[in-house]
Amino acid sequence: MMLYILKDKKDYSLLKEKLNQSSASFKLLNLYGKNLILAWPDQYVKNISDESIEVAIEVKKPYVLSSNEWKKEPTIVNIGDVNIGSNKIVVAAGPCAVESEEQVETVAKAVKRAGASLLRGGAYKPRTSPYSFQGLGEEGIRILRKVGDEVGMPIVTEIMDTRDSLIFKNYVDMIQIGARNAQNFSLLREVGKLGKPVLLKRGLGNTVEEWLQAAEYILFEGNGNVVLCERGIRTFERSTRFTLDIGGMVAAKLMTHLPICADPSHPAGKRELVHSLALAAVAAGADMLLIEVHPTPEKALSDAEQQLTPESFEILMNRIKSLAKALGRDA
Amino acid sequence: MMLYILKDKKDYSLLKEKLNQSSASFKLLNLYGKNLILAWPDQYVKNISDESIEVAIEVKKPYVLSSNEWKKEPTIVNIGDVNIGSNKIVVAAGPCAVESEEQVETVAKAVKRAGASLLRGGAYKPRTSPYSFQGLGEEGIRILRKVGDEVGMPIVTEIMDTRDSLIFKNYVDMIQIGARNAQNFSLLREVGKLGKPVLLKRGLGNTVEEWLQAAEYILFEGNGNVVLCERGIRTFERSTRFTLDIGGMVAAKLMTHLPICADPSHPAGKRELVHSLALAAVAAGADMLLIEVHPTPEKALSDAEQQLTPESFEILMNRIKSLAKALGRDA
Amino acid sequence: MMLYILKDKKDYSLLKEKLNQSSASFKLLNLYGKNLILAWPDQYVKNISDESIEVAIEVKKPYVLSSNEWKKEPTIVNIGDVNIGSNKIVVAAGPCAVESEEQVETVAKAVKRAGASLLRGGAYKPRTSPYSFQGLGEEGIRILRKVGDEVGMPIVTEIMDTRDSLIFKNYVDMIQIGARNAQNFSLLREVGKLGKPVLLKRGLGNTVEEWLQAAEYILFEGNGNVVLCERGIRTFERSTRFTLDIGGMVAAKLMTHLPICADPSHPAGKRELVHSLALAAVAAGADMLLIEVHPTPEKALSDAEQQLTPESFEILMNRIKSLAKALGRDA
Amino acid sequence: MMLYILKDKKDYSLLKEKLNQSSASFKLLNLYGKNLILAWPDQYVKNISDESIEVAIEVKKPYVLSSNEWKKEPTIVNIGDVNIGSNKIVVAAGPCAVESEEQVETVAKAVKRAGASLLRGGAYKPRTSPYSFQGLGEEGIRILRKVGDEVGMPIVTEIMDTRDSLIFKNYVDMIQIGARNAQNFSLLREVGKLGKPVLLKRGLGNTVEEWLQAAEYILFEGNGNVVLCERGIRTFERSTRFTLDIGGMVAAKLMTHLPICADPSHPAGKRELVHSLALAAVAAGADMLLIEVHPTPEKALSDAEQQLTPESFEILMNRIKSLAKALGRDA
Repeated sequence: MMLYILKDKKDYSLLKEKLNQSSASFKLLNLYGKNLILAWPDQYVKNISDESIEVAIEVKKPYVLSSNEWKKEPTIVNIGDVNIGSNKIVVAAGPCAVESEEQVETVAKAVKRAGASLLRGGAYKPRTSPYSFQGLGEEGIRILRKVGDEVGMPIVTEIMDTRDSLIFKNYVDMIQIGARNAQNFSLLREVGKLGKPVLLKRGLGNTVEEWLQAAEYILFEGNGNVVLCERGIRTFERSTRFTLDIGGMVAAKLMTHLPICADPSHPAGKRELVHSLALAAVAAGADMLLIEVHPTPEKALSDAEQQLTPESFEILMNRIKSLAKALGRDA
Repeated sequence: MMLYILKDKKDYSLLKEKLNQSSASFKLLNLYGKNLILAWPDQYVKNISDESIEVAIEVKKPYVLSSNEWKKEPTIVNIGDVNIGSNKIVVAAGPCAVESEEQVETVAKAVKRAGASLLRGGAYKPRTSPYSFQGLGEEGIRILRKVGDEVGMPIVTEIMDTRDSLIFKNYVDMIQIGARNAQNFSLLREVGKLGKPVLLKRGLGNTVEEWLQAAEYILFEGNGNVVLCERGIRTFERSTRFTLDIGGMVAAKLMTHLPICADPSHPAGKRELVHSLALAAVAAGADMLLIEVHPTPEKALSDAEQQLTPESFEILMNRIKSLAKALGRDA
Repeated sequence: MMLYILKDKKDYSLLKEKLNQSSASFKLLNLYGKNLILAWPDQYVKNISDESIEVAIEVKKPYVLSSNEWKKEPTIVNIGDVNIGSNKIVVAAGPCAVESEEQVETVAKAVKRAGASLLRGGAYKPRTSPYSFQGLGEEGIRILRKVGDEVGMPIVTEIMDTRDSLIFKNYVDMIQIGARNAQNFSLLREVGKLGKPVLLKRGLGNTVEEWLQAAEYILFEGNGNVVLCERGIRTFERSTRFTLDIGGMVAAKLMTHLPICADPSHPAGKRELVHSLALAAVAAGADMLLIEVHPTPEKALSDAEQQLTPESFEILMNRIKSLAKALGRDA
Repeated sequence: MMLYILKDKKDYSLLKEKLNQSSASFKLLNLYGKNLILAWPDQYVKNISDESIEVAIEVKKPYVLSSNEWKKEPTIVNIGDVNIGSNKIVVAAGPCAVESEEQVETVAKAVKRAGASLLRGGAYKPRTSPYSFQGLGEEGIRILRKVGDEVGMPIVTEIMDTRDSLIFKNYVDMIQIGARNAQNFSLLREVGKLGKPVLLKRGLGNTVEEWLQAAEYILFEGNGNVVLCERGIRTFERSTRFTLDIGGMVAAKLMTHLPICADPSHPAGKRELVHSLALAAVAAGADMLLIEVHPTPEKALSDAEQQLTPESFEILMNRIKSLAKALGRDA
């Protein structure tokens, strides 16, 4: 695979012609303000040169656009005035599932006051069992949008079906791809096409390399606004619900320019563990946290065990702030 | 969760009324020739009785319709005159990816001659990398359909997007849900609604219980024609591509009435291992096998390492037949 | 690493001198009737030649003596007139733990009658909890020895401590290294020095490569009588106690000349699964099976759930025999 | 299982008599200044009472002495004036393997200056391959002892064989049980009998519960000076050598009174990851860190990839100190 970074304001029609004449596949992209051409396989393209090319990189890894081989500086994903990947650790908080406007409003105000920047909440819910609460769907999105606007927080919520893309385009600020859809390649392409910021969870059985390849599907559609989210992998251990792979998260940071988020709620499975996992993720370098908060967790319609109360969340935010400061960051 | 098996030809409008008056959720289904009502949660329904009820079962497991608690006799899934779950071990064979009509035709004739009953081939291909061959899509389906009709074999191929359901409804005999979409609940519901036979692969990070719950989504839409397919799980071992979980397959057989298929090609990752894994699956009780065969594996556009030649497949079929006989089965 | 296979009856003192003069480490071994020299690292030895050398092999894999790169023909491990690795599938059966002479005698007679060749039973028991029955120790070995002699079956039992090696040397026919001690390198060396047949279980968290490297420790001490035993690995799946890695077993067979055994009892965890796993292992090419049988499993002091009754074992032996026949083998 | 905490200075001979007359197994222990009696199984002991009993606890978990059900206050393990489990985070540092006196001396002085309290170094080395450097053995212990005395640091090193216990008793301050011997129950009992502080690594395939049960073997011999060490588990992920299970470590802290150590070097596998994993472990609540430092890592005889230089270690210590302060601890 060759990646050509093109010179700014330079005509590259001759290069395109050369590629058309070779038997190579190629794709033209504009990412992060750069014109790029991807061309493959190697044997057809390695001898091509053109003066429109600023840099030509032969990429050996199975992910290209998400790699930091060609883009050394970290990417910052902007959602309104929230900047993920900057010095400030961004916290998205809210209920596992949207249950009612009142519930979302109560939580949104509380988490904003405590320092959260983004409002999260599930409207379409991927549930292991068809008999579990499946979310309010479109109605849930409307509630989130309304409360987000009221309180002044951009909203993050999960998409499950390519057929819902218009709703997400119109109402949602950051689109989450959940762990169960981490290799739903149709859905990845679709959110790539929408161009909106994407929070891409790692699949519970996926390697770090596969996670970066999933991001590659989105970037390949020209959407560079991807935040990677580690949320725990499947291992033999059962004292936690999933194993938060802090090492994999750190390894990913060394491989990519994309910002990285950690979700301590899902791997914890029980709220006693959430604070420690959140702090560990921050200490290891996470740029963002995704935390479940419910006004009355014991009555929650899903994931009751792992959601924090607003009070506990406030304490956590204070701990995160002092930790961030010790690390030379902000929260 | 209560499962009511209703008496044949008995009016159950009174029961529906009772359920409507309770605060319970309930769903009426017709599966395997039986009228069923599912009603939950327990506290609202445990005192309901009605003379239209033949049997009332209180189900404690997280899967209900796919469990053999209420349906002891094994389910047979019929595709034309191919019966999966009967005494005969059914073999589906064909290329990993449909590449051309000629390729499919060559393989189809060879595998049919050797004893395969179903023609498999990938048209829409879920690939870890966006730079890998993504399949011929709709054109691939047309090739499969044409060759299947010519040779006289029903076809099995994978669906990846809810938006493609009409094509699958019109052209495909058995719809495969791949491992990456094993918990794509929108897609599971969609194939449930189509009503056609489904080959449901186990997700590479999913437990047996989650696999049965995925099947539950399909059955819950009234489609009982589900064959479960074990294709290897993610473990730390790397001498094979995935770990074929023969034990999990056997455990599933003790939990469900649905027939079970094994895919020895994907976990093997290299063709030297395919025969042994196929024979092991048959010895352990698989009702069906899914095997990749390519006329010239070394030139295959995907999974070149693990596809069998037609010659090797024929040898394998002969070994399967003699093994099946020793086990009192047929192949 | 260089492996020199020396010519028979040829003086190799000159070669030793050359090696002494180089800075290489080297070791002289006699294995399977061949004189061998291992020498490393490569840079010191690659130019050494000598006319006593029949074949010189540069080994790149992390295991050498256990690899089939230098020894193509399968190794047969002989215990009296029991030959493991030959055409006949050898079955070792007996109780998880030796509880009394009467218990062992009852089982031994039953399993022998059904066709088992070796008597297995635990005397020193590695138990996860110090509060579980820890085995009868030396007394257990004496019971096994006595019953083995009476019934005419060689005995297999597990060693846990290097300090017990004399007892095992004097009384035991085949020494088992359990999964928990699969990388207890002191113990591996010790059984290497004893020279007796070893049944080497794979560690529950070990790769196939590490398993062969564990065997390498034993062969490196000059003891080539090693049978590898797959007994299930740790994965996320919980419907079985461990995941019997049939694929890893088959992969190992392609890498080594050593015979391979499967233990279906431990991964099953419950007796309903034992038959299917045993048959799968035979179909996949196992040379030996290790099966737990107890006269009254429900009263067993350990692993009550997974031990077969003598009646069930007899049925299984008959199924194994007919399967073996279909595979061109014997049992 | 019943655990009786006995009153101080109270005669309990009558209780012993009652237990002798029952059919129960029981064991008298003195741990943390308390006389304890463990008695089981439940049905024989549940009706026993005696006035020498201060508290009687019916324990349902598979670990008893290591549980915090009976001992709420955290245990502090003292090695000279180093207190593990107190407010101060204790750091043990040194080379993976002892190679020479000079090497150990250089590292010891550097790590002490940077703030490490304990000197670690491998003398007996458990190596996956018999062809890897196996450590200097007894000579290595002598070097560690000499340098430790010179520099004024207690020493930590690994035991591999019960037959070496006298050397460890005489020369070593804290005895490490490695991951490969985490369920070598003979060795666990032996270090239990020695009474010295033990650093007990979690086995790479062991659950948190099994880890606590391994500790139980040591406590059961009357040795309460156990520090648990998380060092990464085996998972499918390969961007790191092992998966540091921060969640499992936090879960363990909620289950036990024993202090907890994290080893970030082994799971990292490469030094770029060590800092982040060390900081994450501290943020999650680790009481101790075990870190590999080598004067010239690229020349190390083992684990060259993951050892820090003294300079990098000093930077890490400073980061740990400021993090500890932000958490209200000390380092």
